[in-house]
This record gives sequence, C-alpha cells and structure tokens, in this order.
Amino acid sequence: MGPGPSDVHPRVLRAMSTPLVGHLDPSFVEMMDEVQDLLRYAFRTENKWTIPVSGTGSASMEAAVGNLVRPGDTMLVPTNGYFGGRMESMAERAGGEVVHVDAPWGEPLDPADVADAFDEHQPDVFGFVHAETSTGVLQPDVPELTSIAHEHDALVVADTVTSLGGVEFRADEWDVDVAYSGPQKCLSCPPGASPLTLNDEAMSRVLDREEPARSWYLDLSLLEGYWGSDRSYHHTAPITNVYALREALRLVAEEGIEERWARHRHVAGALKAGVEAMGLEMNAADEFWLPSLNAVRVPDGIDDGAVIDYLLDRYDLEIAGGLGDLSGAVWRIGCMGHSARPKNVSYLLSSLADAIDAQDASVSVDADAGMEAMQTALGE
Amino acid sequence: MGPGPSDVHPRVLRAMSTPLVGHLDPSFVEMMDEVQDLLRYAFRTENKWTIPVSGTGSASMEAAVGNLVRPGDTMLVPTNGYFGGRMESMAERAGGEVVHVDAPWGEPLDPADVADAFDEHQPDVFGFVHAETSTGVLQPDVPELTSIAHEHDALVVADTVTSLGGVEFRADEWDVDVAYSGPQKCLSCPPGASPLTLNDEAMSRVLDREEPARSWYLDLSLLEGYWGSDRSYHHTAPITNVYALREALRLVAEEGIEERWARHRHVAGALKAGVEAMGLEMNAADEFWLPSLNAVRVPDGIDDGAVIDYLLDRYDLEIAGGLGDLSGAVWRIGCMGHSARPKNVSYLLSSLADAIDAQDASVSVDADAGMEAMQTALGE
Repeated sequence: MGPGPSDVHPRVLRAMSTPLVGHLDPSFVEMMDEVQDLLRYAFRTENKWTIPVSGTGSASMEAAVGNLVRPGDTMLVPTNGYFGGRMESMAERAGGEVVHVDAPWGEPLDPADVADAFDEHQPDVFGFVHAETSTGVLQPDVPELTSIAHEHDALVVADTVTSLGGVEFRADEWDVDVAYSGPQKCLSCPPGASPLTLNDEAMSRVLDREEPARSWYLDLSLLEGYWGSDRSYHHTAPITNVYALREALRLVAEEGIEERWARHRHVAGALKAGVEAMGLEMNAADEFWLPSLNAVRVPDGIDDGAVIDYLLDRYDLEIAGGLGDLSGAVWRIGCMGHSARPKNVSYLLSSLADAIDAQDASVSVDADAGMEAMQTALGE
Repeated sequence: MGPGPSDVHPRVLRAMSTPLVGHLDPSFVEMMDEVQDLLRYAFRTENKWTIPVSGTGSASMEAAVGNLVRPGDTMLVPTNGYFGGRMESMAERAGGEVVHVDAPWGEPLDPADVADAFDEHQPDVFGFVHAETSTGVLQPDVPELTSIAHEHDALVVADTVTSLGGVEFRADEWDVDVAYSGPQKCLSCPPGASPLTLNDEAMSRVLDREEPARSWYLDLSLLEGYWGSDRSYHHTAPITNVYALREALRLVAEEGIEERWARHRHVAGALKAGVEAMGLEMNAADEFWLPSLNAVRVPDGIDDGAVIDYLLDRYDLEIAGGLGDLSGAVWRIGCMGHSARPKNVSYLLSSLADAIDAQDASVSVDADAGMEAMQTALGE
C-alpha cells in the first residue's frame, strides 16, 4: 500500500516467467500490436504513437520531455510537487529554458495562473502532473488547461504515472498531446516498460527536429522504426516486461476502464472515510483527492518514520513518507490496481491505528470509528 | 541460437515471477548489495561503481558514453562494426566530437592504428567493442589498447554486451575504466537491467562534470544516490529484472566464471568445427573468433533470409542475418549462456544443413561431416 510498485496480479507474475522469444520474432511483433492497442484503450486515445518505453516511468517521462523540447524551447512546468521538478531538470538537459506556474505543494494548478504564465512567457511546451504522487493531489480542469496551451500553440505533456488505469484520464477527449505513465502503479505491473502516447502533432514536432534528441536510447524518431510499421531493430526490447504489460492491460480491458476507475474511487473512498473517521486528516482538499495515492497528515507528536517501520516490521505492510516540501508531514498510502481491494483497506486501517497507538504519544486514534466508516463506505 | 536474447534458465524465469517489494524496501536494498557483488565477480573487478542500469543494453551503453563524454570532449570510436556507430551517435548527442580508428567490418582493431589515432587526435575517451555482435569478432590485445589510451590520459570504455559471462574479460587486470553489458546474451537473463562498471577515475570525471549529463534517467551522479551508500530514491528500479539478474549471476558464480568461459569455447568450438566441416566458412579469422557469436558466411546462391525463415518455421530455431556492411553476407548464430549446450549445437547443425539443402540451389553441405566434426570437438 505504498506509492508503488503495487501488488502484481498472479496472471501478470505468470506472464513474467514466459520463456523469451527474440525481439524481432514474428510472434513478438504480433504481441507488440496487441500491447499498443491495449495501451490506446487505457489512455483513451486513437494515437498511432502509443508504445511502451524500455525503462521505468522516468524513462517514459524523459522520452516525452527530451524529444518534445528542442534546444532553445521554453517549457512551462508546475511547482506544486516533486515531479514538476523532475520535468524541469529533464527540460533543461534537453537544452530548454524553464519557466514556472506556481502552486503550493498539496494544491492543483489554477487555470488562471496557467493562462497568466502563458501570456507572460509564451512557452512551447506545457507539462503538468495529472496525479501527483508526492502530494496525493489530482489535477482537475484538464480540458481547460489544454485549451489554454493550444490557444498559444504549445504542446501539452501530462504525467499520468499515478492515474493511468486507476483514475479517469482521457487523452483524446481532453486534447492532451503527450502522456506518459509507469506500469507499477494503477496497472499493477512490474516496472520496466512504461506507457507513452503522442498525437500526430507532437510526433511531427519530434520527427521535424533539426538536431536529434539528446538521448539515443530514448529518441522517438529512432523508436519509430521499431514500434512503427517497419519493426526494424533499434534496441532489444525488455521482452518479458512487455509480456507482463500485455497481461496487465488485458486485465484492465477485461474489467473495463470506467469500471476500474469506479473501483478505485469506491475502495479508496472507503480508505479515506476510515482514515478521517479515525481522526486523521487528508492532505488534499476533497475536490482534489487522488484515490490512487492518499496523503494523510502525520499528527503532531508522531514520528512518521517510526510508524512506517512499525508497519513493515509487524504487519509486512508498506506505506511511505513524504517527499520534498512534505517530508515528515504526510504518509503516502497507495490504493492502486490489484492492491485496491477492500481487504487491503481494512488491513491498512487496523494496522495503522495500532502503529499510531504503539507510539505511546499523547495522540490516539479511534480505530473502531475508522473501521465502521470504512464498512459504511464499502456498503458492507 | 540468435544473437540474443538467449534461452533463460528455469531458475531465472522463476525469479521473474517473485512478488514485488518496494524499490526502497530493506529486503530489496540488501539484494542490491548482492547483485553488485555478483556483477563485480562477473566483470572481474573491485570497482565500487558496479550497478545494473534500468534499461536494456543500449541504456547501459548510453549511461557510459553520455556520462563520460562532456560537451567539447573528443571520443575515439571504431568503425569495424555496427556498435561503434551507435557509440558515435551517443557521443555526438552528449556534445562530443567523434574521431575514428578504422578497421573493416569483420576485423579487430590494430593497436598500431589506435596509437596513431591517439597521436593524431588526442581523444579524451576511447571506446571499443570487445565482442562485436554484428561481425562475430573478438577484440584481442585489450591491455595493449588500454595502455595506449592511458599514456594519453584518456579513459577507456569497453562494450562487453556479448562477452560478459561467456568470453574472457578482466576489467581490472586489463585496466578498462568503464565497461557495460546486456543481460540477455551470455548471462541468459531477460533484458531490462544492464550491467555497468566504472572505476574511481571514471566516476570522478562523472562527478566533477560542470554541466550535468544530458539524460536525467541515465545520470550516474544521480544514480550514485540510489546505488551508493545512501540508497535514496532516484527512480523506481525494475525490481523484477533485478531479481532475475541476481539469479542469473548466481548461476555464473556457481559455475565459476573461468569454467563458464571454457564452456563457451568448448561448445561453440564444436559448433564452429561442425559448420566448417559442413563446408561453410566462418566470417572471422580463427584468431578473432568470438565463441558467443558465430558469423557464418552465406554461400553464393543462397538467400540468407529464406534459410532464417525456414529454420524458424520448421525447427522453431532462431538465427539472425547480418547487419550493416554484412547484411545478406552472414548468418549470426549465438552460442550464449544457457543456450551454449551440446544438444543445441547438434540441433542447429542438422537443422541448418537441412535448411540449406531445402533451398534447392546448386549449393549443398556435408551434414554428416559436420556432425562428426562436432562430436569429435565435444570429445564424444
């Protein structure tokens, strides 16, 4: 129940132990088509350029940023969480100038601020984090953000690492040009092959670059030869991870993407209800609550790390501490993919209550009220 | 029996289906130590900076080249195969100037030519390919090459993608500063986490860079925080691939690295003897023969692709065609790791003989002589 990797479904683990074929074997090439189709389904897109990048989520992030941002381009990035900072570092390494749209950690971007930043800086690329893993905040108003960007002829990159497959995201309907994700969050797949989608306009900009992207490994104009219609050799794909991603995406399709979003809201909603009834406070306001990542405020007088260690030692249960501005201030509790099940929420709530009580501080939580609120929310 | 991925040992496949823990879980952190120790054993090095890079072999290659080469640096790269060209592209993207040491495809570098290139260009970094997967050529004289480079205060990067764990390579004794590899060749591990080692001098150059490396994902000064003593978060490691790599490296240690090199020579030697007795010709001269990758000349009148397809269709057996300058001229037959077993060589030789005969060309091969020579070489 940490911020990822989430628990992997047995079918996906089984897929990981499939014997290998070559990365140019006809059977693998067919599988590539299937994975691309399933990724399109999860992203809610028709984009041709929808592929797994051969690395973990930060690799798909750098594939997005490093290919779109050309030397001298300006990229607008948010300051409201850890991953905006990572975008910034990647954009600078790509030779870009970085400008900011500000919001405090724990709050989403305000479209008015985004519009102001566009008027002031006229950026070429705008990046935002749809689901901020560091703060547990969901960015609302995505269509409003993309329309501001498009009025200014900028391309939009969305970080959907902690939303894809768990929280409503619609690449085409919301007019997002590029979106990337990781497999080990709401898709519950081992990390190693990471979703990326680009629409035609974004891919044209990549293919029209005068200077190649600064990473050969992540150069999408070269990857186009492998994942496009040629299927020609670029690098050896992480074959087993692609097997696993296929199986994880099949589970998404079998459940139905909208049903899967609803399950995350339902199960994480019970987690949230339980946490609040226990007397703890969520970090994000209700309107920006991110079901897949629940940032819970650490009560005064409690050592966040001691609770985390206690849960791991006593209950074999992982949750994480805060990052950056929220270090020491929150616990981050994931509710993602195969982990988003009622029994996990129940186990988490009772264990967390015990862990806080065990700190022997003046703080105590009402475990019974938490369990009752959870059961009510689950309709049990 | 293609140029990789090779067959994965059942123990390694089993490791791939181990349930995940977090990338900062104490049990995983312990495993990281073990993997680093086992990698040192395989590379024959004491280098502290010995890690699996989170990607396939080209990612460890770009981690090496992209971190060592600073804007304005000059890198000397070879022209005698496909992978020198890839080094060149990576060095240029890192902002480096590239100069060449020439040798034809299918021949190794001559130390005299390397010395001349150093005198002429005074490069900062020298890259060479220890085992050229595109030509089946093993680079001899490594200590001579590294000593030329060090006399000129340059750092040496070795591509050991197709040698690590299968063909003699000694990072420390041969004074190689940086070496990288892939897991899916002689280590017989699914691709996704790729070996890299740097000595202190190379790592100092990386840590002293004025301008950061151009890839965030592959920035070794940042990875230092995760794989070094801090174990602090950089990106989510491909956990399952690290499990698998540990198991594959344990198999190397159980067999013994020198015994493993000997097995590759022995088994691939039988393959070579069989191929030659059948009347086919190896592409590399005997002194430069690479046991792990056997490039066999396609006889005149035979369509290389038809034979490859026939083997896959009829025998479920993968071999590959030539790349670049050797496209259409050779078949590339791997004999790597778990695939380097007598029964595979026997199956390969009889299948290949049948495939060539089936082409109904004027070319015929002596299958019986091939099998006999193979058995003699195996001591059967």
